[in-house]
Amino acid sequence: MKESPLITLATDFGYNDPYVGVLKGVLYSHLKNPGIVDITHNLPVFRPDLALPFLLDSLPWFPADSYHLVIVDPGVGSERQGILMRGFFGWIVLPDNGLPQQLLKWLGPLEAYLLNKSSFPEGNSSPTFQARDFFAPALIRLIQGTPILDFSSPIRAEQLKTIPEQSSGNCLVWNTDHFGNILLGYHVQKNPAEVNILLGREKIPFVGRYQDIRPGELGVLVNSSRWLEIFSREDSAANRLNVKIGDRIPVGIVGGEGRYL
Amino acid sequence: MKESPLITLATDFGYNDPYVGVLKGVLYSHLKNPGIVDITHNLPVFRPDLALPFLLDSLPWFPADSYHLVIVDPGVGSERQGILMRGFFGWIVLPDNGLPQQLLKWLGPLEAYLLNKSSFPEGNSSPTFQARDFFAPALIRLIQGTPILDFSSPIRAEQLKTIPEQSSGNCLVWNTDHFGNILLGYHVQKNPAEVNILLGREKIPFVGRYQDIRPGELGVLVNSSRWLEIFSREDSAANRLNVKIGDRIPVGIVGGEGRYL
Amino acid sequence: MKESPLITLATDFGYNDPYVGVLKGVLYSHLKNPGIVDITHNLPVFRPDLALPFLLDSLPWFPADSYHLVIVDPGVGSERQGILMRGFFGWIVLPDNGLPQQLLKWLGPLEAYLLNKSSFPEGNSSPTFQARDFFAPALIRLIQGTPILDFSSPIRAEQLKTIPEQSSGNCLVWNTDHFGNILLGYHVQKNPAEVNILLGREKIPFVGRYQDIRPGELGVLVNSSRWLEIFSREDSAANRLNVKIGDRIPVGIVGGEGRYL
Repeated sequence: MKESPLITLATDFGYNDPYVGVLKGVLYSHLKNPGIVDITHNLPVFRPDLALPFLLDSLPWFPADSYHLVIVDPGVGSERQGILMRGFFGWIVLPDNGLPQQLLKWLGPLEAYLLNKSSFPEGNSSPTFQARDFFAPALIRLIQGTPILDFSSPIRAEQLKTIPEQSSGNCLVWNTDHFGNILLGYHVQKNPAEVNILLGREKIPFVGRYQDIRPGELGVLVNSSRWLEIFSREDSAANRLNVKIGDRIPVGIVGGEGRYL
Repeated sequence: MKESPLITLATDFGYNDPYVGVLKGVLYSHLKNPGIVDITHNLPVFRPDLALPFLLDSLPWFPADSYHLVIVDPGVGSERQGILMRGFFGWIVLPDNGLPQQLLKWLGPLEAYLLNKSSFPEGNSSPTFQARDFFAPALIRLIQGTPILDFSSPIRAEQLKTIPEQSSGNCLVWNTDHFGNILLGYHVQKNPAEVNILLGREKIPFVGRYQDIRPGELGVLVNSSRWLEIFSREDSAANRLNVKIGDRIPVGIVGGEGRYL
Repeated sequence: MKESPLITLATDFGYNDPYVGVLKGVLYSHLKNPGIVDITHNLPVFRPDLALPFLLDSLPWFPADSYHLVIVDPGVGSERQGILMRGFFGWIVLPDNGLPQQLLKWLGPLEAYLLNKSSFPEGNSSPTFQARDFFAPALIRLIQGTPILDFSSPIRAEQLKTIPEQSSGNCLVWNTDHFGNILLGYHVQKNPAEVNILLGREKIPFVGRYQDIRPGELGVLVNSSRWLEIFSREDSAANRLNVKIGDRIPVGIVGGEGRYL
């Protein structure tokens, strides 16, 4: 068994219920001295498509031999499958909810395995808490050193569930953060020359940092994780513009290089 | 002193204040390499009776030698006592707020001890933060290996504070979870043949799993922790039915075996 | 490198975004077996002045060789500086947002150092996430054992940014806690003989503990962390009085000794 494994949790379980604590209890009960880090438990509920940017932002900052449990699972209790993937970030265990397919597209070739349900009979029959009964046990078996092919089989990219791609020019709001910043689903590889977002007849200025704008006014910039971000300095842009997670905003991007969620 | 003890925290302190951090500081200051797990800090405020199902769901999943600090304490600063209990779950420290009595009823014979207030003079005089000044120090003394009878005395079940029992047929809503599922205070040992919950003139279908119902419709099932749970698939049942924690709902249960909170 | 350092985090990042998880990833990636404790991530947004009492309450309860990362940073991406301080609490890293100056005033003479921006080129160019790119790396370098003067220079108290002092007689509401208690910015060294807070024509009784008041009625006391606190027993005083964080309340204090925030 690997000692002191680092495990991250990202779920849509929230902070009010016993679910997260129970998950940690299961991990502590079967592993030696695990380090457990909460990425967040407020992933958008029932929206696995919106979990991708949270992972893109987080995974690169953890040790390369980490274990990640990512649960947004509207299909809990159904026939949907469980997936295990390996890449630069270590290992990730998650339902086949579209996210594994997206991770392949964004993070390049990754090993992918289909969890054998027959190896986890209790998980199979669990109607509402398969994170506890199926996904955590799979992660535990991996960390305990059980050979992967004893409880999973290789799966090809085209066998994974897909989520429809967004058409460009229309940016998905994947998060409105604690400060009211609006995170747009355009990931910048090379800075654009201009970004055109209209507010009525006014164009929101495209700037380099928050201080280029007066307090209370709106701006758009490329943030430290390379996403386009609309902000209102020391104020909530999401409230001012009445924007919420899952909305789409018309954005004109001139020059540079990047990728739409 | 026991090294690397696993300690869980379940409180009604919330996440906005310094209280939880301070508790952890106290534990880190006096223990060697503790592992600390938050079960939740959003237990219903001032409602120790509603903390029981959170514990019933959580305790079995932790290592058998864990230490649990459970603080819902409307009596902070009063004459109410502090209790120490031992069982299959390890140790638990908590105020005598009705919860120790309930734990005895639900988890069978447990050792129970009354904390000597004279052993914790600072805790005694603390007006508003006895978790920091009384309960955490008691847990620390236990983990440090101080003989139990040096700071506590055995107490009999009938000496513990009681909470009135609920009459059957009327289910307490002990939680509305992050997904809007309504957790009912009926714990199933053997599945009922039928569950009758009326919504106006319509009966909510009693099913086996979420997918037995179309998205947006209501159902009731036995969840993975064996509670009756009303759900609206990929939607909030609590919002739809305008139900909140502490409400009571008439439920007709036909056959099977179970127990009311 | 120091092994198993204890690191606390206090930020205004909230719990919904990847920011806190990423910070922890950075710490785990560069340190050996760190213990990481969240004090809170709901410090009042953009209000470094209100973070002081959270620190005054928390720092004394942690081991004396702890490391504290405290980020409330409306100046992220600007020219404001980064500060490192040492005292009875161990080390603290934070922006020069007024809080370092306040810590000096409240916690007596502390060593203070100005972080050299040239030692952290990536932090310098990070527009929106300098906690990840500047402050956490500074803390890591310290824990790794890099000599302090390799990446910082001593700074005198009068060079630190100041926050205007409050005039006495008018108490800042620095927190309304999870229970609805109103935490007032008057820290008691010696109990006052009387505290006069008027509600219309009625005086709120000044008492010793919650139970001196009937449930649902208002009182004011000196709490376990020595702050004046207005409470409504088993109810929310903040809701009843419609008070929120940052408000000021006229308070007459007779006798005793204490200090205004």
